[in-house]
Amino acid sequence: MHIVDSTKSGGVTLDPWSSRAIKDYKRLMETFGIRGIQEIYPLLDKVGMRKSMHMLRGIVFGHRDLDKVLEAKSRGERVAILTGFMPSGRFHFGHKLTVDQLIYFQRSGFKVFVVIADAEAYAVRRIDREKAVKIGVEEYVANMIALGLDPRETTFYFQTNRGTEYYRLIQLFSGKVTMAEMEAIYGEMSPAKVMAALTQAADILHVELEEYGGFKWVVVPVGIDQDPHIRFSRDLADRFSRELNLVRPASTYHKLQRGLDGDKMSSSRPETTIFLTDPPEVAKAKLMKALTGGRATAEEQRRLGGIPEACTKFDMDLYHVLTRDEELTRIYNDCRRGHILCGECKLYSWERLEKFLQEHQKRLEKAKSMAWKIVEAPKF
Amino acid sequence: MHIVDSTKSGGVTLDPWSSRAIKDYKRLMETFGIRGIQEIYPLLDKVGMRKSMHMLRGIVFGHRDLDKVLEAKSRGERVAILTGFMPSGRFHFGHKLTVDQLIYFQRSGFKVFVVIADAEAYAVRRIDREKAVKIGVEEYVANMIALGLDPRETTFYFQTNRGTEYYRLIQLFSGKVTMAEMEAIYGEMSPAKVMAALTQAADILHVELEEYGGFKWVVVPVGIDQDPHIRFSRDLADRFSRELNLVRPASTYHKLQRGLDGDKMSSSRPETTIFLTDPPEVAKAKLMKALTGGRATAEEQRRLGGIPEACTKFDMDLYHVLTRDEELTRIYNDCRRGHILCGECKLYSWERLEKFLQEHQKRLEKAKSMAWKIVEAPKF
Repeated sequence: MHIVDSTKSGGVTLDPWSSRAIKDYKRLMETFGIRGIQEIYPLLDKVGMRKSMHMLRGIVFGHRDLDKVLEAKSRGERVAILTGFMPSGRFHFGHKLTVDQLIYFQRSGFKVFVVIADAEAYAVRRIDREKAVKIGVEEYVANMIALGLDPRETTFYFQTNRGTEYYRLIQLFSGKVTMAEMEAIYGEMSPAKVMAALTQAADILHVELEEYGGFKWVVVPVGIDQDPHIRFSRDLADRFSRELNLVRPASTYHKLQRGLDGDKMSSSRPETTIFLTDPPEVAKAKLMKALTGGRATAEEQRRLGGIPEACTKFDMDLYHVLTRDEELTRIYNDCRRGHILCGECKLYSWERLEKFLQEHQKRLEKAKSMAWKIVEAPKF
Repeated sequence: MHIVDSTKSGGVTLDPWSSRAIKDYKRLMETFGIRGIQEIYPLLDKVGMRKSMHMLRGIVFGHRDLDKVLEAKSRGERVAILTGFMPSGRFHFGHKLTVDQLIYFQRSGFKVFVVIADAEAYAVRRIDREKAVKIGVEEYVANMIALGLDPRETTFYFQTNRGTEYYRLIQLFSGKVTMAEMEAIYGEMSPAKVMAALTQAADILHVELEEYGGFKWVVVPVGIDQDPHIRFSRDLADRFSRELNLVRPASTYHKLQRGLDGDKMSSSRPETTIFLTDPPEVAKAKLMKALTGGRATAEEQRRLGGIPEACTKFDMDLYHVLTRDEELTRIYNDCRRGHILCGECKLYSWERLEKFLQEHQKRLEKAKSMAWKIVEAPKF
């Protein structure tokens, strides 16, 4: 669970997650039977996959049954990775974390499925079809392509456009669970939550049906807050193992990047969330205001050092901006030792982030027109 | 609520429903605000519709907003009638009662929609697709056509084949009701009941959408046990009146014909339910065993008379077999006065029923091949 296990430098061990947060994750993992991601490293070697940056940095920290998927892959079976986005806002760096994982698995031969959850957006947020399709294609699909997801190896689909077998699955699932079982997983249920949960289970499991490709070995990368959907889908897979030949989906777990004020990152809090389409001056202003782990005065900071673990700008470095470990380690240690102050440190990251945004936004225009071509969008 | 209000004969008033049962119906009507069907008779006159046999016989006894539909019709607006069948068993005389109403309204210019509830059959009874389609087409659609429903003016559809807008409606509805509201209407909810209720609401309301014809004036003929679906759909129509321009559906209420033992008629109790495809000798055997209102001995029956209200064979006469009122009245009075014994009376009805079944089954073969042509069935 270290950024780079082997990296020690000047007596400071690089372990930005050895805080209370990580203890909570450990407890959650034990409670729900999630296993450490390191366990699958030998299997990654076996199938010729490198470890991803997010694994090595402890951001992708756990999994369920990823070993089974990798073993299937080593036997030459087809494997897939699947995720969903609700087209209800703009694409931000929290979304990028998931897409980075899609790209990592895709480049290792996994087929990718991306659900645009327009039904959910409509039911939950009253986002009408025209808007959901536009956001889904121009924000989500386009940004994913611009980030490097290969559209030829990706199936993007809208929930309301997925066809007969998919809807049948939702109906079918509803018949084999009780309300008490759903409440045990999800807490108090509303009709909308029942529908949303059944729909998410269909999203995760339908690619196992022959009609949708018959992918029996599917990984779903999620934040731990999404684990109820994984557990529900795994339960349903067990219950329909015979009737529909379903196999439990696998999952990976990643930490959720905080917003720039230390609270939840969300499209609905745009002042603390950097979007991949933010104009550079807007993104810069957000970054410069980010909550850091700095001390009250410059003197104090030089004497005591900063706390990168508390710094939301360092989160940006860790998750996205400083992709070279040496660079990340240097910034971490410079902060810890009080060799650098927050303003200066932010500008350092901003230079790199600015370059990333400029290049990304250049690719985005072309990606947008491609997105409209490849997505089978519902008519509106 | 009389078979024929004006028919009095030999001092015996023909009122086969002035029993406890009718008092229960009256109470139900008051509780739920269902109005007597007689109220709409002047409007039927106004739009040039005769009263149906089932109305005049007190079988179709109530309605909600049928007056509004008839007024719309008198203004030249398009009107429709809609019903659904679960393709889980064979087509029996209980089903025929509903189809008779479809035919009555169709011949007065109503567009007909028939839902084959294959999703529900699958979720509730595990009837797989191939079987559901075969039963739906060959049992339900074919029998309806053979009974006289005009397939050119009827849309038959399967729930799993109804397309995007229909499924979207289900999602959408789920977002605007609470579990407490559903429980107030349906009692304790399971996930399957949530799905089934939302799906039934979509079945009833989707024909109001432009994509499905834009029929704003829709009647749903139901037994009073199905009234929760009507109330739920009317609630949802109110909630989506602005967003989707939905109007409350109207309904008619009919009494449920009992099985031949006096209990519920059901495909799952074939010995007390006559199917329209029963070979004559099978149907005859069932009818001859039917529970009647006869007395313990022939002598007693001649002295006291029988009780046609308690006779399930008389139900067959009333609902289906004796379509001429004079004939029904004569049988009723002969029984009441002890002029006829049960065995003889059954044979009398059997002759007529046999003729009906023979002619129906002759039409059925042709109707079957037509059914396969006109129904857009899901692939399996």
